[in-house]
Amino acid sequence: GAGADNDLYINQAIVFIEDAIQYRSINHRVDSKSLWLYRWYYSRTCQWILSLTITVILALAFIEEPSSLTVTSDVRYRLPAWNPPCGLTESIELLCFLVFVVDVSVKSYLIGWKEFWKNKWLMAFILTLIVSLTDWIVSLSFFCKESVRIRRILRPFFLLQNSSMMKKTLKSINSTLPEMASVVLLLAVHLSLFTMFAMLLFARTKDNQQDKEWVVYFRNLPESLTSLLVLLTTANNPDVMIPAYSKNRAYSIFFILFTVLGNLFLMNLLTAIIYNQFRGYLLKSVQSSLFRRRLGIRAAFEVLSSLKETPASAQQSCVSIGALLQVLQKAEMDSRCKQAIMRSLKMCSCDQLSAAQFQKLFEELDKDAIKQHPPSPEYQSHFMQKMQFAFGHPYFGYLGNVVALANIISICVVLVMDADKQPSERDDFFLGAINCFFILYYLLEMLLKILAMGLKRYLSYPSNRFDGLLTVILLILEIATFAVYGFPHPGWRPEFMGLLSLWDMVRLVNMLIVFRFLRIIPNMKFMALVVTTLLDLVKNLRAFAGILVVVFYAFAITGIMLFKGAVVPLGNTRILKQSSQGAEFTGSCTSFSIKKVVVLYFKEKNVIAWYSAHFQAEVIYCLLHVLSVHLIYRWAKIYFVAWWLISSVIWVNLFIALLLENFIHKWDRRCQRESLSDIEYQRTVELMFRDVLEEPTEEELMEKLHQHPHLQLCR
Amino acid sequence: GAGADNDLYINQAIVFIEDAIQYRSINHRVDSKSLWLYRWYYSRTCQWILSLTITVILALAFIEEPSSLTVTSDVRYRLPAWNPPCGLTESIELLCFLVFVVDVSVKSYLIGWKEFWKNKWLMAFILTLIVSLTDWIVSLSFFCKESVRIRRILRPFFLLQNSSMMKKTLKSINSTLPEMASVVLLLAVHLSLFTMFAMLLFARTKDNQQDKEWVVYFRNLPESLTSLLVLLTTANNPDVMIPAYSKNRAYSIFFILFTVLGNLFLMNLLTAIIYNQFRGYLLKSVQSSLFRRRLGIRAAFEVLSSLKETPASAQQSCVSIGALLQVLQKAEMDSRCKQAIMRSLKMCSCDQLSAAQFQKLFEELDKDAIKQHPPSPEYQSHFMQKMQFAFGHPYFGYLGNVVALANIISICVVLVMDADKQPSERDDFFLGAINCFFILYYLLEMLLKILAMGLKRYLSYPSNRFDGLLTVILLILEIATFAVYGFPHPGWRPEFMGLLSLWDMVRLVNMLIVFRFLRIIPNMKFMALVVTTLLDLVKNLRAFAGILVVVFYAFAITGIMLFKGAVVPLGNTRILKQSSQGAEFTGSCTSFSIKKVVVLYFKEKNVIAWYSAHFQAEVIYCLLHVLSVHLIYRWAKIYFVAWWLISSVIWVNLFIALLLENFIHKWDRRCQRESLSDIEYQRTVELMFRDVLEEPTEEELMEKLHQHPHLQLCR
Repeated sequence: GAGADNDLYINQAIVFIEDAIQYRSINHRVDSKSLWLYRWYYSRTCQWILSLTITVILALAFIEEPSSLTVTSDVRYRLPAWNPPCGLTESIELLCFLVFVVDVSVKSYLIGWKEFWKNKWLMAFILTLIVSLTDWIVSLSFFCKESVRIRRILRPFFLLQNSSMMKKTLKSINSTLPEMASVVLLLAVHLSLFTMFAMLLFARTKDNQQDKEWVVYFRNLPESLTSLLVLLTTANNPDVMIPAYSKNRAYSIFFILFTVLGNLFLMNLLTAIIYNQFRGYLLKSVQSSLFRRRLGIRAAFEVLSSLKETPASAQQSCVSIGALLQVLQKAEMDSRCKQAIMRSLKMCSCDQLSAAQFQKLFEELDKDAIKQHPPSPEYQSHFMQKMQFAFGHPYFGYLGNVVALANIISICVVLVMDADKQPSERDDFFLGAINCFFILYYLLEMLLKILAMGLKRYLSYPSNRFDGLLTVILLILEIATFAVYGFPHPGWRPEFMGLLSLWDMVRLVNMLIVFRFLRIIPNMKFMALVVTTLLDLVKNLRAFAGILVVVFYAFAITGIMLFKGAVVPLGNTRILKQSSQGAEFTGSCTSFSIKKVVVLYFKEKNVIAWYSAHFQAEVIYCLLHVLSVHLIYRWAKIYFVAWWLISSVIWVNLFIALLLENFIHKWDRRCQRESLSDIEYQRTVELMFRDVLEEPTEEELMEKLHQHPHLQLCR
Repeated sequence: GAGADNDLYINQAIVFIEDAIQYRSINHRVDSKSLWLYRWYYSRTCQWILSLTITVILALAFIEEPSSLTVTSDVRYRLPAWNPPCGLTESIELLCFLVFVVDVSVKSYLIGWKEFWKNKWLMAFILTLIVSLTDWIVSLSFFCKESVRIRRILRPFFLLQNSSMMKKTLKSINSTLPEMASVVLLLAVHLSLFTMFAMLLFARTKDNQQDKEWVVYFRNLPESLTSLLVLLTTANNPDVMIPAYSKNRAYSIFFILFTVLGNLFLMNLLTAIIYNQFRGYLLKSVQSSLFRRRLGIRAAFEVLSSLKETPASAQQSCVSIGALLQVLQKAEMDSRCKQAIMRSLKMCSCDQLSAAQFQKLFEELDKDAIKQHPPSPEYQSHFMQKMQFAFGHPYFGYLGNVVALANIISICVVLVMDADKQPSERDDFFLGAINCFFILYYLLEMLLKILAMGLKRYLSYPSNRFDGLLTVILLILEIATFAVYGFPHPGWRPEFMGLLSLWDMVRLVNMLIVFRFLRIIPNMKFMALVVTTLLDLVKNLRAFAGILVVVFYAFAITGIMLFKGAVVPLGNTRILKQSSQGAEFTGSCTSFSIKKVVVLYFKEKNVIAWYSAHFQAEVIYCLLHVLSVHLIYRWAKIYFVAWWLISSVIWVNLFIALLLENFIHKWDRRCQRESLSDIEYQRTVELMFRDVLEEPTEEELMEKLHQHPHLQLCR
């Protein structure tokens, strides 16, 4: 009946408006049941459960065998890690898989059969689930003793498919690949030509004394390629040319040419290409988000305008205010926006809204949330008013910064004085006393500020929250210290009184003071700019970081599988080392004992350790060298070269491109900002680009709406 | 009289037009004698002598004591370098100084007294000359035994002041300094906060086994600062965290935070800032060049229009064609441009030129030199025409590339097969035979191409010149080899027949073939783009390279003076090493024996060696470490940190900024270019920006002309 139809239209409008708010696509089923399912699927609880499931399945690697989640990383000292019994992690995994099965079925149902076949991500999701479940069954049938677990490498896919931002970013990266591939090809040509050249230049001669270069670096084709590839990472930079250079200085020309061409030109060209491709990336992504929002609102307008209560006589389609109010009350949205829209609806005199008016109402969504700080309390007493003026003045804040600086300097002085003293000679009286004094000052400052501004206003500034929290923590730690060690007096040495963990806390107090110093940053103009750029960047970088996590995880798991059993405790490696050819080890590798490499690379699944690795091409080189000599693992070289290319070359360049993009936008806008600097914006990427964005035209919106696979518009 | 006046005007016009062609400033004296002096000073001979003098005085460092220009760089084997007798280098120096004195006096005279006081570069030049001459006198009075020679550090200034491009670039860099300083300050704050944090975190404990981290890296404030500064260069990346990491994995969070913030964010922010500042740099510099050109031409017009023969009745000032022809004949300019201007002058019907017409005539100067290849010979015989078609066809060129590739592959195969053979087992027959075959093919290819295209057309393509030259060299080397060793036969081993240097030449032949392979580059679109970008970049980078040479030279000379006497032959250093504290050397420094560091850094004045150093922060770190332990030179740390900042951080970022600028311009223009790709342009920076440049207005030009310090215009 008409009532049921009307209910359906209202529900559709609610969902479309929620889609608009969340920048979601509106191409989903729109019948009553599907709408209910859709709202349930995108409810906070459901999405939270999904995120939790993804986190759990990714975190499983930390407790699964072979896990290395122990306190020490030293293979000699560490205790065997806890091995969960067979079936424990597997049953958690099964639970996760079940959640994913529900996820994929709901998603597939909601977008409809036709769209499903076009959606490669969903197909890949189903495929991944099938492979994972098969692998899981195989695993259980071997009682967890099987050596290869494919499903582990596939896990990061679950993270990837759940984020539309990451999928979009991946698409952008994908479109950059042809150009990147060209430069990588150029690098390969460069490398191979120079390798041939090197092999001809540093050939074996009759005189064995003379061909050191040949013996160590250019013995055969793979050796030469590796030497030059590592030179490209600058890890073996002077080493590789030293034997030739000692023979004749002119040989250095070869290495310098190689480095200048490869490192300075080709590598930086990669940066240029990636930056060039990503120049419009942020803008484009924000533009498409805007389109989705406008489309959702327009769709809501269209369905509301087909409500039966609307007078059919009107030429133009329009929406009654009553229907809109009904929709607004049921839609989930920011309460500030909702109130603002309600307010302007009430101020509107007519009771019908045209499409333009409707769209205009929802522009409130795009607006900055201007944060208004609560007012200061108004004191009656003259004395209190004076106090309020004094301690609410910016100069009081500056005084606080000066005191924080003085505190830092005094800690520094104590550190320098105590540097070479034995722990037994050290007197902690001075450090204890200044800590006590400064913490008292910080406490006083906090209380006076609260007095002047009122608690609510004080807490409305993030810098004050940061300050206050640290002050409270400092106070608690200090009181705890005094309770255990008594007040500081000459010869006060807390660490010799047993409870070492609390003395560690005293050190922690000082570290917190170092952090407290950071509050001066907003007071310095350029620093504030830099810091806000960095914070913005972090926001925009989430998708990239997600992709990085995916890559790291896959590499880590592959590494664990490839290098399983390669860990030899230190004693054994030493023997291994001595028995191997001496010449290879006299190079730069001796300093990197195999142990260290092993500690860092083999059997480590701690993602953090992998991350630090990425800055250190040297270790990779050394490992390559060790591995190529020992020929333990044939694939190690390819593995590490791929790792270097992806993590060090491509990702770092992507990062630089994004940073350039962000910084240049920010910088251009700096002047406009300055005038508004006293109003705090909750900045989003959308706002940064607002004056450059193009509004979609009505024709574009309507064309898109008519292409909707499930919504049949009357007109 | 009027005749003399007319002559003066003609001469002025000639000089102004020459100024316009060379993009020189026209603010110089304009009386007859000064004009003669000016033309003499800017004549090719004079400028060539000046350049030669600068080269000579800079090159002096290579033969002066302490010189290290020996074949080997190994201090153990190298013979004492030739020490020129006292007075030899000094007299060459004096000659150079005299040339510079003449240079500075002519320059000062030509710009006039008033302008001289405003010109800081000239004042600095004079000051440098006075200091150098004083130092020279002191040097001679000590019979060359004095230890400090200030004038050596000042030498690169002579290079700097002679290039207007370098002065302009320096000004740009100078204007970027405030922003760079802010980031460097931020880096310093970052570094010092983390240093304090580290000292509190890795404090000395009672248990000596546990505080390895403290002993090795954070013993005191300078030590901690150095450790973290070196971490910023990523040179000691995993080393510095390994002791703490073995104790507890959580310590790695500290190092990762430090690296991510410092290396990934702050360092790349420096790139962003420098790129942002340099975004308009190329455009601005080209724009100001254009202004100088238009100003020079306008000035020529103004002086010519005041010639007495011009009818005074004319309202507008104008120039007679006869006078212009007279000027053109005497002015030194590109013959192609001169002919083109003459031609359009003759085509002009009127005999008076207005300012706009005059300016338009000289636009020929801005135009691309479209290179027209001479026509192919026209053969009568039908057979020859067919031959011409076949061998002039691009497919014949592709065949040549395929053959070159086959040659490369065959050399590669021989190299791989011979890699592990003893020189005595090796059979060079195969390599000799393929060399012989391929060189014959190359010769045939060259001859057939010449037949098809005619010698002139063949030589007009740079790729053919490259090809032909290599083919001729290959042929000569091959003939020489056969003359000495006979034709290749199984068991052919040229190296065992005495004349080793010729066998080296056979290897050289193969290297040349590797180079010949490069001719395929223009056939691949993307590669061609990349290569032309790089070539353009090299052109635009000359000024930067000049400044780099200046900095390198100054650093090298300072290094020589600072570290004089620090070279201890290997035996001694070993003793030094053993007697020093062992703990410091167990780190990553052992692999870099002091010898190597010494070889690379101390007493080296070979600029090339310095250059390679810049890629290797590790060596710097090691040296810092060695020096800080031994406390031999207090200033070494500051010296190397400055070196790292300037050469590695700032210069590399400048380079990236320029590359980005160039590449993005080029990329945007790629589509327009493609249509014209068959016409070869002689590309200049000016042409790249032509469609973006703004023409200066008449008012701007006239205002500038009226500000001319020496030229009094009649109207």
